[in-house]
Amino acid sequence: MKIDLNADLGESFGNYTIGNDAAIIPLITSANVACGMHAGDYNVMDQTIQLCKEHGIGIGAHPGYHDLMGFGRRKVEMSYDEVEALVTYQVGAIQAFCKRHAVKLNHVKPHGALYNATFNDRRLADHIVAALYRLDPDLKVMGIAGGHLVQAAEDKGMTGIHEVFADRNYEEDGTLVSRTETDALIHDAEEATSHILRMINDQVVKTKTGKLVPIQADSICVHGDGPEALRFVHAIRTALQQQDIKLLMI
Amino acid sequence: MKIDLNADLGESFGNYTIGNDAAIIPLITSANVACGMHAGDYNVMDQTIQLCKEHGIGIGAHPGYHDLMGFGRRKVEMSYDEVEALVTYQVGAIQAFCKRHAVKLNHVKPHGALYNATFNDRRLADHIVAALYRLDPDLKVMGIAGGHLVQAAEDKGMTGIHEVFADRNYEEDGTLVSRTETDALIHDAEEATSHILRMINDQVVKTKTGKLVPIQADSICVHGDGPEALRFVHAIRTALQQQDIKLLMI
Amino acid sequence: MKIDLNADLGESFGNYTIGNDAAIIPLITSANVACGMHAGDYNVMDQTIQLCKEHGIGIGAHPGYHDLMGFGRRKVEMSYDEVEALVTYQVGAIQAFCKRHAVKLNHVKPHGALYNATFNDRRLADHIVAALYRLDPDLKVMGIAGGHLVQAAEDKGMTGIHEVFADRNYEEDGTLVSRTETDALIHDAEEATSHILRMINDQVVKTKTGKLVPIQADSICVHGDGPEALRFVHAIRTALQQQDIKLLMI
Amino acid sequence: MKIDLNADLGESFGNYTIGNDAAIIPLITSANVACGMHAGDYNVMDQTIQLCKEHGIGIGAHPGYHDLMGFGRRKVEMSYDEVEALVTYQVGAIQAFCKRHAVKLNHVKPHGALYNATFNDRRLADHIVAALYRLDPDLKVMGIAGGHLVQAAEDKGMTGIHEVFADRNYEEDGTLVSRTETDALIHDAEEATSHILRMINDQVVKTKTGKLVPIQADSICVHGDGPEALRFVHAIRTALQQQDIKLLMI
Repeated sequence: MKIDLNADLGESFGNYTIGNDAAIIPLITSANVACGMHAGDYNVMDQTIQLCKEHGIGIGAHPGYHDLMGFGRRKVEMSYDEVEALVTYQVGAIQAFCKRHAVKLNHVKPHGALYNATFNDRRLADHIVAALYRLDPDLKVMGIAGGHLVQAAEDKGMTGIHEVFADRNYEEDGTLVSRTETDALIHDAEEATSHILRMINDQVVKTKTGKLVPIQADSICVHGDGPEALRFVHAIRTALQQQDIKLLMI
Repeated sequence: MKIDLNADLGESFGNYTIGNDAAIIPLITSANVACGMHAGDYNVMDQTIQLCKEHGIGIGAHPGYHDLMGFGRRKVEMSYDEVEALVTYQVGAIQAFCKRHAVKLNHVKPHGALYNATFNDRRLADHIVAALYRLDPDLKVMGIAGGHLVQAAEDKGMTGIHEVFADRNYEEDGTLVSRTETDALIHDAEEATSHILRMINDQVVKTKTGKLVPIQADSICVHGDGPEALRFVHAIRTALQQQDIKLLMI
Repeated sequence: MKIDLNADLGESFGNYTIGNDAAIIPLITSANVACGMHAGDYNVMDQTIQLCKEHGIGIGAHPGYHDLMGFGRRKVEMSYDEVEALVTYQVGAIQAFCKRHAVKLNHVKPHGALYNATFNDRRLADHIVAALYRLDPDLKVMGIAGGHLVQAAEDKGMTGIHEVFADRNYEEDGTLVSRTETDALIHDAEEATSHILRMINDQVVKTKTGKLVPIQADSICVHGDGPEALRFVHAIRTALQQQDIKLLMI
Repeated sequence: MKIDLNADLGESFGNYTIGNDAAIIPLITSANVACGMHAGDYNVMDQTIQLCKEHGIGIGAHPGYHDLMGFGRRKVEMSYDEVEALVTYQVGAIQAFCKRHAVKLNHVKPHGALYNATFNDRRLADHIVAALYRLDPDLKVMGIAGGHLVQAAEDKGMTGIHEVFADRNYEEDGTLVSRTETDALIHDAEEATSHILRMINDQVVKTKTGKLVPIQADSICVHGDGPEALRFVHAIRTALQQQDIKLLMI
């Protein structure tokens, strides 16, 4: 049994710092690195890839809408062709920093509103996958477990990485409870740990109604901003190790 | 005898158009494509690479300072390491569009103030070359004929492309007469043509004092904005063909 | 009888030029000046206000979403409070250039997607009006004739400017035929002129179904980009003068 | 005896936070508020002006070069006319938020590289002052004590605010010891306090050579980022109060 732990990194910009990359990197197995459009800049990218390399973790591109002020969390109206170009640009930039540091780009995970936009739009997922395939058919594509993006990748013959969330409740259809709902988040580390172990061991997720529905868990998304987030990650790591579930980048 | 004709392209941004790429592309053999920081955007880059491919011309990256408002013509204070990251980011983005369209990135020519900044700074030239070498040692590096950038490239074992200007007067030390001087520009097409032919045939440039000094001319920079610029290019092409000098991308 | 002719100006940015402000300014009575977020920059604003002053035309602010690449034509998700701050920022910047040139800011017209967003959102209109009222209750507010924005302004005790379009067809509910429809635009200058004269003389608009519906026409929106647009403006001006309809800024 | 305590505020942007405005505002008498070009955004400006109003402190504009990535600390090449437009734009935007919250804009202090650029360029200082005078001749102008900017303001009939630094060593000519020197900063709170008291009580500054040179101290610049900076401010406040020097906005 094994699982990947991923976190979003490299989100600082110029004089502005977000996150605590140095603290979270030793605890995870895969990083999603911002590409300079919703967060990050060329200096931050250079340093982040270097840091990921030093710790031997899997490196992923984390492309988002070009909206620094909105941190990529606002949907930007654009055609499918424009999305292909948007993703190509950012993944290309990250690939260059990988070449610069003689490491491999392992996966791509769209960020924020672009990630969410694939939930209800299979064609968008197909276009993102098509753009990635043209860059490198060996890229793995990370998206919400069971969602359009991983499905589109697998249909194209690429590897999908099914991402699950330790701190989020699920609907019966396998989607996340919206953040606008009061029960969107799981705040208790013990409950979050059981949540995750059930997904890994039994391949099911307990939804907010109590019903168990099938899920594939390849990678768990964790956060590294603030001491509480880091404690959460430590709790998850400890529980996984007690169950002999290996932490391995996918 | 042969020569390359290059022009700066892909400088439009969003709703804003600069240049007339469709008119100039059929007349040149190499394009320097803006990379989205001083000009261009991901859509324009996608379309420009596609257009270059259709006409079979050599594709180059044209990275500049990240200053859209200043069009990359203002020097931005940054360390050598930052310049390496700046160039890596932009060349990586262009490489991705080349992969997307299954063409090869042939060369890199820094833009505007970044191009000029290498005139008096060999260390800057070395850092730019070092960044490019790590991305792809086969990239050719275009800079002013006889200048630090091509020298740095050649010292690194890469191919330098010595660029000359049909419409600029030269100083005795091989540099261009500054645009702040009244005799910086050559406005007469016939004079510009002689200027160029002398460089190609005799490997010398006639400086503003009349003195002839040695020069290596691998590529001629031309402009495509406006009917007058296009007439200039036609005049140069005609003169080169009459002398059996082949137009070939380097 | 009188009417105002307005056009969107000051949309150039850095090295990028849009429109032909010098040609259109002598033909209009009011200008909507971009404020540096979807178009324009501080230099362009300075020059545009100066030019408007020289020709004695009414000066308006033209605030839009902060999206240079989308030219303000894409809706940006934000709260009503954020829209108030967005508008306050831009109108304040224009007010400063008006003070600098000792002229008065006469009106405000939201741009592009922000203008359109008020069509179906009276609360948004109220928030924009509230922000403007706090800046200067004497500001006039330009919006689509009969729409929420002018209504909100009038309900607040401010002056609404009902804007009509010479080159656009109307639905029976007084809204514009969407640009996605084939009959959105009126291309014939004579037809456009009749369209306008009917609105001014009879206070009705002939909709695409032929039905006449009431409309208030305070200002006609015209365009100045390209020779065809300028011919259109000339045709409208001539027709208005023949009917003794005075061109006067509102 | 009285003195003003000022700090740079409102430097957060979108999802990015810099500084601890809520903690520093109760400790100071004047704020220099970023204007959205080197830092800050329209939402942050709205909230910052509101917060300053609640605490009754003097509000100043803090315009900088348009360079978010460089945080306004890099000089941007531009003509004097462009600087006038740059400053006009930003001060106008802040004036609008002041109107919105029914408070007065008290002063203007250029930020970072723009502040520093006036040290050796009296003409630049004159142009900044000219731009401010056209906006509001009652604006006070804050610059380094005895420097070109305050001198230019006073020559124009405006009020200059001579700013001094508690934590910086001075050269004999009244300028600051460069940050590239090892003795640029005063780290000891007690030493900093003596430094300041000498300037206020005796109108002299002890330079790094030990020589005392005349100085006018109207306002002390303090910082609020981090617990150490806040302790520093508390130490200075306590010392001033013990000497019956009133803290009053200028």
